[in-house]
Amino acid sequence: MLEIRLARSADFEKIWPIFHEIVSAGETYAYARDTNQDQGFQLWMTLPRQTFVIEENGEILGSYFIKTNQSGGGDHVCNCGYMVSSQARGRGVASMMFAHSQNIAKDLGYLAMQFNFVVSTNESAVRLWTQCGFDTVGRLPKAFHHPAHGLVDALIMYKWLAN
Amino acid sequence: MLEIRLARSADFEKIWPIFHEIVSAGETYAYARDTNQDQGFQLWMTLPRQTFVIEENGEILGSYFIKTNQSGGGDHVCNCGYMVSSQARGRGVASMMFAHSQNIAKDLGYLAMQFNFVVSTNESAVRLWTQCGFDTVGRLPKAFHHPAHGLVDALIMYKWLAN
Repeated sequence: MLEIRLARSADFEKIWPIFHEIVSAGETYAYARDTNQDQGFQLWMTLPRQTFVIEENGEILGSYFIKTNQSGGGDHVCNCGYMVSSQARGRGVASMMFAHSQNIAKDLGYLAMQFNFVVSTNESAVRLWTQCGFDTVGRLPKAFHHPAHGLVDALIMYKWLAN
Repeated sequence: MLEIRLARSADFEKIWPIFHEIVSAGETYAYARDTNQDQGFQLWMTLPRQTFVIEENGEILGSYFIKTNQSGGGDHVCNCGYMVSSQARGRGVASMMFAHSQNIAKDLGYLAMQFNFVVSTNESAVRLWTQCGFDTVGRLPKAFHHPAHGLVDALIMYKWLAN
């Protein structure tokens, strides 16, 4: 039985191994690979507007944040980031978090969701977000330095949420 | 005789009227229209990596900042923002600042420059950046709430700087 709930500060102890595995690999997120736990807490728990965890029997399988993507005249568009534990991949955990985040975004009054930097070689992410209704509205040539593939493109993906 | 130099903290007293006029109009920058002077200082002077002013006989005609657009695998792409005093428009001040910023960007080791959010109705900006060699690599539908035109698109513009 999977449950999604707001993250508490103490949850970061269990989020950190997931965050660290993904970020230190340097293949999908534009965070420094040597981001430490305090910096990770800042990025994942403090800067966003809200952070959630998805858990099963008290074990955290993944986490996501939601924040406002631009201020002022751009503040009706939100941005989210999602991470899933490597042990929990292939179970639809990211899809479940996305569905939840889309409802939260609407509840918070956002009209659209934008992903600023989807690494083009992260094919499972591109496929998932496309299935979730996102359009690829931009492509940044050679904007990401992939540890194995060198300079690769990053995509901007966008979904209008309002009717 | 126009000169571009690094901004000092005290310069913000003279930058602020330019910043305030542009930001309070709410037509071109995704900053809150009621951004106050302290918040403006933070956005323009503190958060960026470097901030410059362009002056003539001790009078500041404009200012720009440069910063890293993404961390980690994205940290070879910079972002800049430019503001020109309404009294100094039409004199090529923005072009001069851009030429300067492009050299600074290369000196700092950046390989590309990205503008994340060019409001599509800001035609003079779109024209200028296109003339300066930027490609429009993305379009965010209805991502900006313009005070006169309602929801309008924002553009992502990108220029590769390295050879």
